[in-house]
Amino acid sequence: MLLRREDLHASVSDPEASSMNFLNEIANRYPNAISLAAGRPYEGFFSAADIPHFFTRYLSYLETRKFSPTRMLMQYGRTNGIISDLVAQMLAKDEDIRVPNEAVAVTSGCQEAMIIAVRGLCAGPDDVLLAAEPCYVGITGAARVLGVPVVPVPEAEGPAGVTKAIRETRAAGKNPKALYLVPDFANPSGACVSVEDRYRLLEIAAEEGILLLEDDPYGLFGLDDRPRPRLKAIDTTKSVVYLGSFAKSAFPGARVGFLVADQEVVDAQGNLTLLADELSAIKSMITVNTSPVSQAVIGGFLLEYGCSLRLANADRATFYRENLLTLMKALSEYMPGGTSWNQPAGGFFATVDVPVVADVPLLERSAADYGVLWTPMSFFFTKGAGRHSIRLSCSYLDPADVVEGVRRLAALLNDEMQKRDA
Amino acid sequence: MLLRREDLHASVSDPEASSMNFLNEIANRYPNAISLAAGRPYEGFFSAADIPHFFTRYLSYLETRKFSPTRMLMQYGRTNGIISDLVAQMLAKDEDIRVPNEAVAVTSGCQEAMIIAVRGLCAGPDDVLLAAEPCYVGITGAARVLGVPVVPVPEAEGPAGVTKAIRETRAAGKNPKALYLVPDFANPSGACVSVEDRYRLLEIAAEEGILLLEDDPYGLFGLDDRPRPRLKAIDTTKSVVYLGSFAKSAFPGARVGFLVADQEVVDAQGNLTLLADELSAIKSMITVNTSPVSQAVIGGFLLEYGCSLRLANADRATFYRENLLTLMKALSEYMPGGTSWNQPAGGFFATVDVPVVADVPLLERSAADYGVLWTPMSFFFTKGAGRHSIRLSCSYLDPADVVEGVRRLAALLNDEMQKRDA
Repeated sequence: MLLRREDLHASVSDPEASSMNFLNEIANRYPNAISLAAGRPYEGFFSAADIPHFFTRYLSYLETRKFSPTRMLMQYGRTNGIISDLVAQMLAKDEDIRVPNEAVAVTSGCQEAMIIAVRGLCAGPDDVLLAAEPCYVGITGAARVLGVPVVPVPEAEGPAGVTKAIRETRAAGKNPKALYLVPDFANPSGACVSVEDRYRLLEIAAEEGILLLEDDPYGLFGLDDRPRPRLKAIDTTKSVVYLGSFAKSAFPGARVGFLVADQEVVDAQGNLTLLADELSAIKSMITVNTSPVSQAVIGGFLLEYGCSLRLANADRATFYRENLLTLMKALSEYMPGGTSWNQPAGGFFATVDVPVVADVPLLERSAADYGVLWTPMSFFFTKGAGRHSIRLSCSYLDPADVVEGVRRLAALLNDEMQKRDA
Repeated sequence: MLLRREDLHASVSDPEASSMNFLNEIANRYPNAISLAAGRPYEGFFSAADIPHFFTRYLSYLETRKFSPTRMLMQYGRTNGIISDLVAQMLAKDEDIRVPNEAVAVTSGCQEAMIIAVRGLCAGPDDVLLAAEPCYVGITGAARVLGVPVVPVPEAEGPAGVTKAIRETRAAGKNPKALYLVPDFANPSGACVSVEDRYRLLEIAAEEGILLLEDDPYGLFGLDDRPRPRLKAIDTTKSVVYLGSFAKSAFPGARVGFLVADQEVVDAQGNLTLLADELSAIKSMITVNTSPVSQAVIGGFLLEYGCSLRLANADRATFYRENLLTLMKALSEYMPGGTSWNQPAGGFFATVDVPVVADVPLLERSAADYGVLWTPMSFFFTKGAGRHSIRLSCSYLDPADVVEGVRRLAALLNDEMQKRDA
């Protein structure tokens, strides 16, 4: 049977997914180009031999607790997972987030946590999701799979922009149910929400009756050790659903993430349940449960470091800090006049504004003639914005390659600006 | 924030999921009851120690092929998976299903394969899924998460019922896009589609322009070795999307399944792609990719048995056969007059028709007073049918418990029938 692409669901033609495929395709065609585009973690911190080690560590732990490892790890199991307790301990120890184990649902990567949360909360035809923009494509993609509209909220406008977006959305007859944001070192912008604005966002959420979906893949990698409370740690009104990832703090291939949903849910008879338990009905229809084999590997990793991701990531944090500082220094040193960039307080990403159009044809020239890859910021906007911005990532490279990548990018931009001015 | 359950998505109140939760809850309250309800595989065939063994087996295989195991198993990876080649070999060897590796997408359990396929194919507001009824709750639940309506097609009516359902659905202004069915030893009924009807279903699919979603978790466990071709093996018109599971043939905790979608897709410019590649855009927004850790364990399992699940499952097939024959013999021996049951040609399940209402209150009495669990068949129907039927499963028990379970069920039914007649 020959199928027509236009008859398939819109999410297969997802513009963000297409952009990302295009980026991967360019990266594959120029394998020797330095990639300031890849947001993946540095590989020097993990080795395949760690997998059986961590697995066995968790197996011993199960045995001391008199559980049958075979049943726990090989049979069908609890929808919300077997390491919720270890994750809850980690959250308390590292982030002062104190929630019952039952509020933690282990998911097949943070991506599944996103789609579960969006599905559970956006129920009716008028329900919409707000998302800080520029925006990570995983959340807009998940919403598109479900047919849930996403209303962009300009990240740069801060809490005032959120209030405005809620009001405008309601005025248009829609129900904003939740706001998705990455408060710490956002992907793609690298921006960080101030402590004051964190409290303000929580007030707005409580006043307006919307939830905050706090995604936190990069929070461990701040340039300094200043306390920056997670929204969930100061969430006295239970307005935050926290989305967690082990992709950067352990390794992506585990495909283990989690969500924290300690909100109470009341039914028509007045019975109370936890949101995490309600959402488990959705998870059971997406992946049944998260592979306990993968959970065991992450469980062993957590046990190895006394349930502290901060401890486990001390070396990585140092490495990523150095890389980000190297990126900043290289930008100062090499970027031509007319460009500018933000100063992220941590994380994997920075935004560079450039006086030329940073589109796919420019990226192609960059890869082919200059040997450097980056990401057009327009990929992360819904409506054609970001055409003069690029995202740089410094997570995957050795410091020397970060410098060389920036040097090559500067050469490209210099040449483009000369062409423009010629 | 206090949330109202009625504001959450309808799938959290999924009647099938609630039924299953209720069943689990009863099972938890009566842990010593014999469960003729659990469809899980027998645990005697696996041991947690196998997990590192199979993992290491796959690791050695990667090394001989000069791949970096650390990158392959720990980094972000290919959306459609790393063991598609081994799965394709297995399908060719065991089932004479011959498809390119690229048509095989490895999923986070067969459940994810279902939701991906339904999402990709049911795109517009009038698109619906047909499903043979009584129906596995995983497919109706997946459709509900996506808001895709399911039209039941009576399993007992065979191909004629399919044609009728397609016509009626179209007459009602809806587009039936695909029919979900389990041709071999269906869950819940235990029914098996005849070879003649398989060819007829393929003709109908091609004539009517709908796809068949062939779910095959039990196909290895026939009572005999008669050749029963998979729909996909005789699918000359590429009308079949095959959904595969390793939950029964390897172990459920791997959470590895797959889909085979070798259909060609044409876009507005006439470019051709494979449906599996198009569906990968959806998978990337659900779970990014399937954990390569889990894939490695299943990969090692396949390698251990020369990519033959039939070979790997020789002992299990013998065990499940004996259990099903034991169940049939016990039914003949103990069931009171007025009951009847089907004679499955294989698999885990049988249907018993009973002259009393087999509802949840009866199940509660059965658990509390007779120490036996079973599943009301009404759980698997959309519209209140199946009230006088029960599903019995014999996969999880030792043969002696199968016999004792049936004896207890017979005692319950005898007593109920006496009460009724009193």
